[in-house]
Amino acid sequence: MPILKIQFLGTSSAVPTKERGLSCTLIHFENAIVFFDSGEGAQRAALAAGIGLNRDCSIFITHMHGDHVVGLLGLLQTMAMHRRERPLMIFGPKGLVEFITLNQKVLGFGLTYNAYAKTVRQGKVYESKVGYRVFANKSNHSRPSYAYLFEETEKPGRFDTRKALALGVPEGPLWSKLQHGRSVKSDRGKTVHPSQVLGKPRKGRRIGISGDTRPSEELVKFFRGCDAIVFDSTYGDDHAQQAKENMHSTSREAATLAKRAGAKLLILTHFSARYRNVSQLVKQAREVFPNTIAASDQMVYDLSAKE
Amino acid sequence: MPILKIQFLGTSSAVPTKERGLSCTLIHFENAIVFFDSGEGAQRAALAAGIGLNRDCSIFITHMHGDHVVGLLGLLQTMAMHRRERPLMIFGPKGLVEFITLNQKVLGFGLTYNAYAKTVRQGKVYESKVGYRVFANKSNHSRPSYAYLFEETEKPGRFDTRKALALGVPEGPLWSKLQHGRSVKSDRGKTVHPSQVLGKPRKGRRIGISGDTRPSEELVKFFRGCDAIVFDSTYGDDHAQQAKENMHSTSREAATLAKRAGAKLLILTHFSARYRNVSQLVKQAREVFPNTIAASDQMVYDLSAKE
Repeated sequence: MPILKIQFLGTSSAVPTKERGLSCTLIHFENAIVFFDSGEGAQRAALAAGIGLNRDCSIFITHMHGDHVVGLLGLLQTMAMHRRERPLMIFGPKGLVEFITLNQKVLGFGLTYNAYAKTVRQGKVYESKVGYRVFANKSNHSRPSYAYLFEETEKPGRFDTRKALALGVPEGPLWSKLQHGRSVKSDRGKTVHPSQVLGKPRKGRRIGISGDTRPSEELVKFFRGCDAIVFDSTYGDDHAQQAKENMHSTSREAATLAKRAGAKLLILTHFSARYRNVSQLVKQAREVFPNTIAASDQMVYDLSAKE
Repeated sequence: MPILKIQFLGTSSAVPTKERGLSCTLIHFENAIVFFDSGEGAQRAALAAGIGLNRDCSIFITHMHGDHVVGLLGLLQTMAMHRRERPLMIFGPKGLVEFITLNQKVLGFGLTYNAYAKTVRQGKVYESKVGYRVFANKSNHSRPSYAYLFEETEKPGRFDTRKALALGVPEGPLWSKLQHGRSVKSDRGKTVHPSQVLGKPRKGRRIGISGDTRPSEELVKFFRGCDAIVFDSTYGDDHAQQAKENMHSTSREAATLAKRAGAKLLILTHFSARYRNVSQLVKQAREVFPNTIAASDQMVYDLSAKE
C-alpha cells in the first residue's frame, strides 16, 4: 500500500491558541504532500514537523478567509528562499489568484519556480502524475467555499495469468498490453479483451476535507464512503445556534454527516478557541458516529496500513 | 520611572526556524504596546507572551517584505475578533496602505475599530498621548525602508518650590502655571518665567530600531545616544560579503555603529537561519562594543530600572 497519512498543522478556528495554529491539513501520499488550506503559521508548523518544502506539492484553499490562506504567502516565499525548482499547483476559489498576484507585487517577491494558481470549479480539479486526484464541491459558508475530496487513483484489477494462458495469450508484450487496458489477438486468432483477464479495478482510498461549512446533502453525497472525513467542528451542542449563524458545524452535525455518508472515520478539526478541551465535542459526536477522533496540531493519522 | 521594556516576538531573518519566528519587536511603555514589524506568527507569539491585543497600540513597519509585514493581517483580524474598539495607528513605507486595503478586500474582513494606516516620511511620525514619540529615518535596504526611534516624551525639569517662594510666587494655581511652561506675575508685580523655577527638562529614554539595513552615517546620527539599539545582525564575519550584497549588516557592523552612535546597549536581532547558535556573532560584536546582547524569541529587556 502506498503511504497515505493525514497530518494536522493547524486545527484552530479564526484565531490561534497556545496549543492550536490556524487551519492547515496536510496529506502525505508517498513522497508528495498536499496542503488543504494554509493559515498563518503553516510554514513554521511544517518546519516543526520536519516536512521539506521542495517536494512534489500541491495546495488547495477551501475559501478566502485570512485564517485559511494568509500562510500561503510565507510558504511561497520560503519555497523560493530554499530555491525550489519544481512547479507548484495552487487551487482555490475566486480571489485566490488576485490574492497571490497583488501580494507578490506589493511585497515584491519573486519565485524560483513556476507557481500555477487556478480558480476552482465543481468537479475534478487536479490529477497528479504521482497517483492521486482531487475533486471539489461547493460547501456552505459565509464566503464562496469548496470542500475537497482527495482520491488515490484507482489501481487496475489483478492480472490473472492462468486465464491469459488458457485463452492462448503467451507471457510477454501481450500481457503488458492487456494490463494497460488494450485488447490483443490470441495465438488462436481470437480477440481477448482486458476484462477477460483482469479482476475488478481496486478503488483508491478517499479522504474528504470539508473546510468551513454547514453540513449539507451535497456533502453527504460528495463524501460517500470516504475512508476518512476531516470536518468542520467549530462548536459543541452548547453553541448550536452560533454554528448556524456563523455557517459552521457542531461536532454532532459533523458526525451525523459522516454517518449518513457511510464514512469509515471522522476527524474533527477547526475548533473554536473557547474550547481548551475538546473532549465534550468528541463525546457528542461519538453518540452519533463512534469512530470519531479529534485532530490536534502535529497529529499524524496513518491510513497506509488500513484496508 | 514609567515601565519601558523591549520584548522580542520574532528574531529570525527571512524564514522562521524552530527557535525563532519572523521579525517582530515590541516596546511596552506603561500599558501601551508598540510593534515594530509584524512578521508571520506575530499574533501567536504575542499570545504566547500573554499580551492582550485590546490595549493602546501602534504599529510601525520598517519595510514591505513579507517576513516583516504578513503577520499584520492576522493581528488586525484577531483584534477585530476580540471586538477591539480603540483606534489603531499603523505606519510604514509606501505600499503599506495598499497592502492592508487590498487584503481586506480580497479576504473580506471588517474591523470593529478604526485602523489608520499612514505612509511614513522622514522625521517625527507619531506622538502618542500616553507619552512617547516615534521618529523615522530612511535606512538602506533592498526596498524602501525606515529605521525608527522610539522616544519617551521629555519630562519637565523639577519645580524648585523654594525658588518660587523666594521670587514671591505663593503655592497655588500660579505654581501649576509655571510647571506647565507659562510665565506668571509674582506678588511683587514682577514677571517670573518657568526657566527661573524649573530645572533642566529630563530627556526621555530612547530606543533605536534599525529594521533591515546596511550601516550608514545617517543611522549613526539618528541613533545618537540611544539607551538601546536593536539592530540588524543577519550575518557574522564569515558572511560579510553576503551582508553587503543582501543589504543587511553583520553583528560587527552593528557594533561599530552602536559604538559610533554612543549607544548604551546593543541588542542584535534578525539572525540568518544558518546560525543555530549566535554566540560567535555576539563575540564578534563585543570585540567592538562590549555591551552587546543577542535577542531571542520571547526575551524581555527591561529598561525601567536603568538610569
